[in-house]
Amino acid sequence: MFTKNSFIRRNIQQMEGYTPGEQPNDPSVIKLNTNENPYPPSPRVREALIAESDASWRLYPDPLCQALRATIAGLHQCNCAQIFVGNGLDEVLELSTRAFVEDRGLIGFFSPSYSLYQVLAQIRGVETAPITLNENFDWPASASSPADLFWITNPNAPSGRLYEPDKVATFCKQAKGVVVIDEAYADFSRTNCLHLALTLPNVLVLRSFSKSYSLAGLRVGYAIGPAELIQAFYKIKDSYNMNRLAQAAARAALLDQAYVLANVEKIKVARQKLTKALTDLNFKVWPSEANFLWVQPPAPGAAKLYQSLKEKGVLVRYFPGKQTGLNLRITVGTEAENNQFLARLAKLL
Amino acid sequence: MFTKNSFIRRNIQQMEGYTPGEQPNDPSVIKLNTNENPYPPSPRVREALIAESDASWRLYPDPLCQALRATIAGLHQCNCAQIFVGNGLDEVLELSTRAFVEDRGLIGFFSPSYSLYQVLAQIRGVETAPITLNENFDWPASASSPADLFWITNPNAPSGRLYEPDKVATFCKQAKGVVVIDEAYADFSRTNCLHLALTLPNVLVLRSFSKSYSLAGLRVGYAIGPAELIQAFYKIKDSYNMNRLAQAAARAALLDQAYVLANVEKIKVARQKLTKALTDLNFKVWPSEANFLWVQPPAPGAAKLYQSLKEKGVLVRYFPGKQTGLNLRITVGTEAENNQFLARLAKLL
Repeated sequence: MFTKNSFIRRNIQQMEGYTPGEQPNDPSVIKLNTNENPYPPSPRVREALIAESDASWRLYPDPLCQALRATIAGLHQCNCAQIFVGNGLDEVLELSTRAFVEDRGLIGFFSPSYSLYQVLAQIRGVETAPITLNENFDWPASASSPADLFWITNPNAPSGRLYEPDKVATFCKQAKGVVVIDEAYADFSRTNCLHLALTLPNVLVLRSFSKSYSLAGLRVGYAIGPAELIQAFYKIKDSYNMNRLAQAAARAALLDQAYVLANVEKIKVARQKLTKALTDLNFKVWPSEANFLWVQPPAPGAAKLYQSLKEKGVLVRYFPGKQTGLNLRITVGTEAENNQFLARLAKLL
Repeated sequence: MFTKNSFIRRNIQQMEGYTPGEQPNDPSVIKLNTNENPYPPSPRVREALIAESDASWRLYPDPLCQALRATIAGLHQCNCAQIFVGNGLDEVLELSTRAFVEDRGLIGFFSPSYSLYQVLAQIRGVETAPITLNENFDWPASASSPADLFWITNPNAPSGRLYEPDKVATFCKQAKGVVVIDEAYADFSRTNCLHLALTLPNVLVLRSFSKSYSLAGLRVGYAIGPAELIQAFYKIKDSYNMNRLAQAAARAALLDQAYVLANVEKIKVARQKLTKALTDLNFKVWPSEANFLWVQPPAPGAAKLYQSLKEKGVLVRYFPGKQTGLNLRITVGTEAENNQFLARLAKLL
């Protein structure tokens, strides 16, 4: 006879899964909750997909994403062997828990940061050693980590704070294990840590097509770093992890840099306007180098405002808890979306 | 100071990765090596993708694949909670190693079968307890397994042999852990084990869009089974594992059953013709219920013929080793491809 759930691994039974931000179907909702790009992808993406022959879809895709990796390597002036392409950065983060962490190993990250990190450690079944950030979401220069794998989100989410590359370099050199710098938002910031992935033996930098390239729906992200670490991903990934359409779409998007840079610029301008408008409404707005703002609303505070906004058809992100519960994370939308949001907000205050 | 590779988990350093079948770029090659469907997917797939607005691609996909799962559940007359959709069956197989197997657990499978299984156990870092099939690729009715997870390929690859549902049911009831029946080829066979996944508490059946639906390039597969096992996959999968285009394509393909059934019928007819032609050329041809044949060539034998065929522009699959090295696995192609293959083969013999 079978006992209930006796087939499922214990740590999986005990854990809760990760809850992604809501994806409403109602197109009238102003959706500022999951840091998507408010603009569509480059028109070249659609052209590239239409140019794909559906007769090719019966064939397995290139398991090594060679054309896409060559294009990425060209952009970053590195070698294809230093690039791994994954089914969204989710896949790369998950693979890193299996490539670099022994069964009795340790995973580290700054807290608060991407709330998925804790869940990934639970799934891997290993202990975590988070380093708590101070009230300015910063860490002391002397910080180091004994973890086999340490995740840094830079710019940080949810705070939007950018850590200077020199400070990150010091941390990486003091770390025992592999440091993965998740730069999903780096295209919106004034600097980045790419050079660390190309020079230090224990550092990977992650980049995404979900934010600046407006392709969250197509699931493409990549890791840049030492060939030996990249090779470990290729050993353990699913045989054909990237479908044909995602490979073609990402390559077309990457080749249209002018389009992406123009959108990024629009979002940075809108970020500045939104910062000013919210400051004028007595919000504390943290300096942001990403495509979202981290803001502390005036009374009655974040939790209530999150609910009131939702009732008015505006979705933002609220993370309950000691370090995050005073604030809301608001994605920068189009000029029109931001103005509608501000108008609905003004009525609530 | 860093020692070479000290960052990479030991079992990953020690293993070789899986080698997928070759994917040549030369369109003149007759490609009968990776069991792809020789026909393009339903025209409705292309229509569905063209109907997708590229403005939606900036948004994350449905993390739960609800529309696609509802369509699949309709086809199999079960509940959505009994369906998990993955980025190809590769993802489902890999997730099963983490959902059902403890760190000191055990994975079983019949040998020979899909050569990826051993690699997945190595990646998971657990021992395997394979059950060796006899010279007819069969197992004794008394066989049971102490493994936490046991994989059955039915029809078997590479032999093409179908195991009767009653025999599989007996094995599942005698197994200690979860039994995953990989039915990637079931649409080409006269029966299947779907009812076991809908009635037994420890059985999952896997189906693929890569074979009968001609969508290997789009990476979609699914598991059917008890809601509690399915729920474990949903807890641990990547947050957005299925991209928008793959979800839409698979749903359109599934809704055109007439197209798929007609292609399957053509392939079954061609399988019969190819069986006869190869038998006439003194090959031993095993009875196949899949879209490929497992054949033992006459002298000078499998290894040499594989090479000679490759030089003549025909790719088939050769698996060296005691149990498999006398045979070749040949995908059933179009009538024209099969005839070209036979013509080139005749010149070699």
